[in-house]
Amino acid sequence: MRIYDIIAKKRDGAVLTEAEIQAFVRDYTAGRIPDYQAAALLMAICIRGMTDAETTALTMAMRDSGEVIDLSAITGFKADKHSTGGVGDKTTPVVVSIAAAAGVKVAKMSGKGLAHTGGTVDKLDAIPGMNTALTEMQFFDIVNRVGCAVTGQTGNLVPADKKIYALRDVTGTVESIPLIAASILSKKLASGADGFVFDVTVGSGAFMKTLAEARHLATLMVRIAASSGKSASALLTDMDIPLGLRIGNILELQEVIEVLNGGGPADLRTVCIALAAEMIHSATAQPVDVCRVRAEELLDSGAAMRKFTAMVAAQGGDTAYLTGEKAWPTARHEYPVRAMQSGYVHGPDALALGRLAVDLGAGRRTKDAPIDYTAGIGIKCKRGAAVEAGDILGILYCNDVEDDLSELAEQASGAWMIRDEKPSASRWIYERITKDGFEEYTG
Amino acid sequence: MRIYDIIAKKRDGAVLTEAEIQAFVRDYTAGRIPDYQAAALLMAICIRGMTDAETTALTMAMRDSGEVIDLSAITGFKADKHSTGGVGDKTTPVVVSIAAAAGVKVAKMSGKGLAHTGGTVDKLDAIPGMNTALTEMQFFDIVNRVGCAVTGQTGNLVPADKKIYALRDVTGTVESIPLIAASILSKKLASGADGFVFDVTVGSGAFMKTLAEARHLATLMVRIAASSGKSASALLTDMDIPLGLRIGNILELQEVIEVLNGGGPADLRTVCIALAAEMIHSATAQPVDVCRVRAEELLDSGAAMRKFTAMVAAQGGDTAYLTGEKAWPTARHEYPVRAMQSGYVHGPDALALGRLAVDLGAGRRTKDAPIDYTAGIGIKCKRGAAVEAGDILGILYCNDVEDDLSELAEQASGAWMIRDEKPSASRWIYERITKDGFEEYTG
Repeated sequence: MRIYDIIAKKRDGAVLTEAEIQAFVRDYTAGRIPDYQAAALLMAICIRGMTDAETTALTMAMRDSGEVIDLSAITGFKADKHSTGGVGDKTTPVVVSIAAAAGVKVAKMSGKGLAHTGGTVDKLDAIPGMNTALTEMQFFDIVNRVGCAVTGQTGNLVPADKKIYALRDVTGTVESIPLIAASILSKKLASGADGFVFDVTVGSGAFMKTLAEARHLATLMVRIAASSGKSASALLTDMDIPLGLRIGNILELQEVIEVLNGGGPADLRTVCIALAAEMIHSATAQPVDVCRVRAEELLDSGAAMRKFTAMVAAQGGDTAYLTGEKAWPTARHEYPVRAMQSGYVHGPDALALGRLAVDLGAGRRTKDAPIDYTAGIGIKCKRGAAVEAGDILGILYCNDVEDDLSELAEQASGAWMIRDEKPSASRWIYERITKDGFEEYTG
Repeated sequence: MRIYDIIAKKRDGAVLTEAEIQAFVRDYTAGRIPDYQAAALLMAICIRGMTDAETTALTMAMRDSGEVIDLSAITGFKADKHSTGGVGDKTTPVVVSIAAAAGVKVAKMSGKGLAHTGGTVDKLDAIPGMNTALTEMQFFDIVNRVGCAVTGQTGNLVPADKKIYALRDVTGTVESIPLIAASILSKKLASGADGFVFDVTVGSGAFMKTLAEARHLATLMVRIAASSGKSASALLTDMDIPLGLRIGNILELQEVIEVLNGGGPADLRTVCIALAAEMIHSATAQPVDVCRVRAEELLDSGAAMRKFTAMVAAQGGDTAYLTGEKAWPTARHEYPVRAMQSGYVHGPDALALGRLAVDLGAGRRTKDAPIDYTAGIGIKCKRGAAVEAGDILGILYCNDVEDDLSELAEQASGAWMIRDEKPSASRWIYERITKDGFEEYTG
């Protein structure tokens, strides 16, 4: 089997065999195929596409390129969650806590933030004392005792994805739904859970810009997960505008605590309950409606907050920040973003605020850059609000920025997209996707 | 202008600007774009295609990547010929000699043979004393004095093509008509002639397997050449079966001399006259029919043979081999290929005999491998012949081969494709293509 023939076959639009896909993944990971041949194949895949069977074969070959974690030391059903990324997306700590409160085990490995989307590990690292670099033994032990734990990615999971992703990133082959599905799912499958819920975000701040793309990706991941014996479902959620009202690590943690205390913004609370319900459903196979009611109860009763507090304590974090006994550190500078005109808010645009948050210091421009935990953005007005020129739309928080804050605020104002006409009503969750198909979300 | 954006644009099927194409060629040639990004772009071009304007821009950018030869030191109209390659294709020495006899100047730079197709320089190098590595001054001087000269490629012509071709060769991106057109034409334009005839071969032994592909390539090259102020035309010629009856360097030279003496196989003579007529037409703008009659006269009168002899003499070759005063060396071994069954010959298949000739030592397997000038194949029966089992179809000539000759001959027999039904009549030239369109060939 020559890589040249595999490239030519895909170039001509033919379907690759499982053996051909395995050979590519194995030999490229081992350094036996040069980058330029892999780049040619990836571009051909990007343009010609892949069948579900090809995508499944690619996912499995990638999963098997490195370590596959064995979670059998953790008792019970292990559920996992993955989001394709968003701005202001702080659902993970909430969802994990609700699911654990329902008796589902959640051994969550989470990534750092990159580009305009934040990472769960970064947010949790903002809690003084919190350890998100657990050993496997610590990790399993906390999940067994508490029900949930969140740690950074460990071990040599899916080395094929690291190599392929780095190449895709520089060769214009990121935007391929089969390649995205294989990249996400190979890592999820390698991390060993029994069931998955995928939060596939759609809109300006997400990788998937249209509902059709998001549905395609979600369907592919759910089906492939199911075909490998896992229970799986997906929700398509809005990311045209940020989730909740705060962006930035400590700012988002504060909002997490609000939601865990039964409050918080409605969009964030709704999406957290829906995702937690999917996890409970995957573990119990009870109807999703029933699971949703259960999730709400666990949130409002304080059970989820107790789980979160126990998890933070088990991971060494100072829980006095969660209870309010200790005050979170705050940014040195605050600056209001004001409306330049009167009208209705159609934004704020998620991508614009995500990038602005990075500029303010809340995110990373490069892989190993440090993060300013107190920096970020507070949103005061969101889609549908009627504002007058001069009204405060949001607040910028930062410590040391090179740029002039008043200038940044003026530029940021445009992200709120104030227009004369009223926007249509916001939708937070568009569709629910299972291996049997998709349905409009009516939760 | 970032290469990433250029890749993504072509991936999505958009049309690249001249500036984008120039940036790619310039920066890749200069080593500022890595192979893996170039490979991704070439694959996207391969699948998405290029408009005529993009192909023109690519051709010109490649032409300008290195030296462009100035032929102004040669008086008169300079015509050039290019063949997309074939088996038994020995037209160049004949065509060049006829054109020069008609007063057209032919400063022919020619390549070495590679894979199953032979090279003109290799054939001429088989004449003892012949120098095909002329200095520019020698080359120009001989063309001015004699009317024609043939030399190996000199100077740093089109370095972009060398780099791009090497990458295409290993990334499955050779089979792209715009890329093939740009590769051929950039080199032709850099070699400085005023007019061109393209012999675009079609069939098993050619790069273009179908008439439609060949027509596309020919039309593209003729139009782009015309748009850069050159006169150009193309003939689509058959390469399902080899041209003439001999394959191998000295064997082919002998056939060249037969044709130059007014004899030789009808297919070879016809194609040579047709190509020479196009060159005379490009120089004189006389009707092609008139040019064809002129070419025939120059062949039959011995004028073309005298030009060839003068050229060989000027390049240091021993003309006693041309006149028959000295005998050509011959191969040590001869072995007949016999028919395994009775019927009609539909071959011999050009690709099969081309590969067999390489196995016998007549061609190169790798770029710098030596060549055995006496090795090759003599064809005794061609398409349309009725044969009995046991009849001799051809003769293998070789010196030292590792393989068993009787086995090679037995395998070779299949290339003649003997069947019960009679084949349709052979066509040697399918179409004539000018910048105004294509017409069936009726010469």
